[in-house]
Amino acid sequence: MVETSSPRIRRVWSVKRWSDLVVHNGVAKWVEVSATPGADFAIQVQEVLTQIDESLALIGSDRTALLEVLIFVTDLAKVAELNELWDAWIIEGHAPIRACVQVGIAKGYSVEMIVTAAENTKRL
Amino acid sequence: MVETSSPRIRRVWSVKRWSDLVVHNGVAKWVEVSATPGADFAIQVQEVLTQIDESLALIGSDRTALLEVLIFVTDLAKVAELNELWDAWIIEGHAPIRACVQVGIAKGYSVEMIVTAAENTKRL
Amino acid sequence: MVETSSPRIRRVWSVKRWSDLVVHNGVAKWVEVSATPGADFAIQVQEVLTQIDESLALIGSDRTALLEVLIFVTDLAKVAELNELWDAWIIEGHAPIRACVQVGIAKGYSVEMIVTAAENTKRL
Repeated sequence: MVETSSPRIRRVWSVKRWSDLVVHNGVAKWVEVSATPGADFAIQVQEVLTQIDESLALIGSDRTALLEVLIFVTDLAKVAELNELWDAWIIEGHAPIRACVQVGIAKGYSVEMIVTAAENTKRL
Repeated sequence: MVETSSPRIRRVWSVKRWSDLVVHNGVAKWVEVSATPGADFAIQVQEVLTQIDESLALIGSDRTALLEVLIFVTDLAKVAELNELWDAWIIEGHAPIRACVQVGIAKGYSVEMIVTAAENTKRL
Repeated sequence: MVETSSPRIRRVWSVKRWSDLVVHNGVAKWVEVSATPGADFAIQVQEVLTQIDESLALIGSDRTALLEVLIFVTDLAKVAELNELWDAWIIEGHAPIRACVQVGIAKGYSVEMIVTAAENTKRL
């Protein structure tokens, strides 16, 4: 892991073009896409959810810390598939706010999620 | 109203799949769509704006507390209608930042807004 | 510059319909589009990046303060052009998180960016 930091901003996995995750004022934000572009929609969704778990662990939190998930999909007709995986993944009583809209995403990707979560909730 | 809370996260109207509103560090975020999918665009917009007022009241704030509204519409050609209702609703000098783009939204919905506002501004 | 403020919310360039920039709890958010709608994509992108620099200066920060940039484009096929300008502009080790998706934008505009940054990082 590469971390760069100012006194107030923590960046994780910074490459030239973007950081994978940024934490500021106790709030972490990051963008997730599948590691296997071209894979079936449900596989991409499951990968993204698993990656969100990993990112949450990185900031000392878990799914109960989710504040907002903005979901971009390339085909709204497949949201039922997403919801099935989502509902099994989310922890009841700790769901984030959620919007899910259809847009164009870079070739091969059928889902992209922008996640906002509180850091260090497990240390409370 | 169902509220679940950690010391730092307040969730309002949490159902299994999402929360209607989340407050963290003095900032509230929520997503609004019309309660009557299939209704005319202007009706959906007015409903969403009214619902935003209700949500603002819930967090001890009013329209002067709006920070950001990200507006998704399914037809940019109708934004003039939206602007007419919006301009009558917004309080001059307290407008949030605003982006308005065209995307696909779940069937029957022609507008969706993601709102960010400061909580408890009326108690200042 | 017109600024309106509550004890906790600072709004810059507020017009009736929106504010150009809002600062709350040390976080600034704003939306940028080109000042020359109809111009070539690369010109619009460069204008937006230059405007982001100006907005960062206004909040006492610079590119190292960027937290998140959500990029809307009307044609994903042109993202290579955007990336070339972006990569020359971003400061290595201080990249924000970034998502870039294709949506419809108001006529004449081919790119729109929603920016989040920390304020006053240059005073740290």
